[in-house]
This record gives sequence, structure tokens and C-alpha cells, in this order.
Amino acid sequence: MTAYDPNNIFAKILKGEIPSTRVYEDEHTIAFMDVMPQAPGHVLVIPRDGSRNILDADPAVLQNTIVVVQKLAVAVKEAFDADGVYVAQFNEPAAGQTVFHLHFHVIPRHEGAALKPHSGTMENFDVLAANAEKIKAVL
Amino acid sequence: MTAYDPNNIFAKILKGEIPSTRVYEDEHTIAFMDVMPQAPGHVLVIPRDGSRNILDADPAVLQNTIVVVQKLAVAVKEAFDADGVYVAQFNEPAAGQTVFHLHFHVIPRHEGAALKPHSGTMENFDVLAANAEKIKAVL
Repeated sequence: MTAYDPNNIFAKILKGEIPSTRVYEDEHTIAFMDVMPQAPGHVLVIPRDGSRNILDADPAVLQNTIVVVQKLAVAVKEAFDADGVYVAQFNEPAAGQTVFHLHFHVIPRHEGAALKPHSGTMENFDVLAANAEKIKAVL
Repeated sequence: MTAYDPNNIFAKILKGEIPSTRVYEDEHTIAFMDVMPQAPGHVLVIPRDGSRNILDADPAVLQNTIVVVQKLAVAVKEAFDADGVYVAQFNEPAAGQTVFHLHFHVIPRHEGAALKPHSGTMENFDVLAANAEKIKAVL
């Protein structure tokens, strides 16, 4: 497997070199709005610790991360009055991974509403900010 | 959210009332072949503890489970010489959940090979058993 690249876009988001619309952060983990959401409220949960994906992650880091994934799953379901929540984690390009810092997608689902494609259309930043506020309000 | 049903099919698998092709088990978690695989080597990782999905799971249970998800992700990638691994976890029918006991899908991916549909076609049990042996050989 290719080594972790500390200049990937999520590493830059963690360092504050690239802006993001954060909804949650703690000592180990941050969560922010996906800029190409597959549905309104699509968030990404990432550890501060650098690994390429689940295959090379420190198990303790995964354990910290999954608890935040749960927290955000509950929050986006409530914030968007969703019927369900899709959690996905892609490893390597063959599985759809496009940014090589471990991340979990947490996506509200509504009955009858299909997801938009992964890495599809860039959302308006005001919309992302408004959706982030909805999530923060229930966290 | 609907309460956990202790008679769901995965609870019956855990109790041994329904057969499954197990590839891994420990004190907290089991992993077995999905009988309707989206790709060869598709496994499910489930905690022994009963929760409907991630929304009502005990965080400590999630922490035990994600470490086994990682273990199986590494194993299926090696066992099937895969290019990537897709990890998915569906919550509620709107997100594609069909069995209401928390589970993670771990699916080997190969470049250019599309996934079969979720809950699609039942696989031959000899094939599942042979694939299980490949995974157990690298665990």
C-alpha cells in the first residue's frame, strides 16, 4: 500500500490550511461537511492521527473515531429528520477512496430519495454552513 | 426507533439456531460470509451484543466491533488479492438495512469490477465455504 501523504487535503483541513465547515471536534477527531454531499447533511468524520485508510490505521484511533461516527449518525438523523443513516468508509481507489486520509461518510437517508453520486457536485457554501448549524444545534 | 428484536436472523446465527459460514469469532464479535455477496469475499462483522444498528449501540461495543472490521478488511484484501475494500454500515430501511442487528459489510473491491446489488442473489454454499477458507488462511 502507498504510504500516508501528510499533504493530502484532509491533513490540510486538520492543520487549518484549507477551510472546512466543522460541526464537531475533540482531542482525537473532527467532523465537517462534505463539500460534495450525496445528500443534505452529509458529513465526514476523520481522526487527527494520519493514516491512509482503515488498512493502516492504529486500532485505538479507529476506536476513538467510531464513537464520533455514532454521535454524528444520531445527530444528522435528528437534524435532518431522516429515516435512516448510511455510514460508508472507502479504502483505496478501487473502493471509491479519493482522499487518502482515513474518513467515514455519515449520510442522512430519506425514503424514496436516491443518493447523489460520490464526489459529484460542489455544494454552495452557504447551504453547507446552514446544514452545519442544524447539526451543531442537536449535538 | 423500533426496539431491538432478539429473534432477528443474525441473533439466531449468534445462538447457532441458523447456520452461517463463520470466518472469525472472539468474545465480543463474530464475522461470517454474507449469503448474498456483492463480491466474492463479502463478509459481515457483528457484535454478540444486541442492538438494532449504530444508532442504539453501546459505544464500547462499537469499539470492539470496529477493530474486527479492520482485521477482516485487511484479511479480505489479502485473501482475494483485492485492490480495495468497501466498508458499509446501513441504519434503518431507508439506508438499506434489511436485518436489524448491527452489522458492518466488508467487501473486497477490484478495479473495474462493479458490485452486485445488496441483498441480491443467494450464493452457492460450497463457494461461500471455499471463500471462508481463503479468509481464515490469512487471519
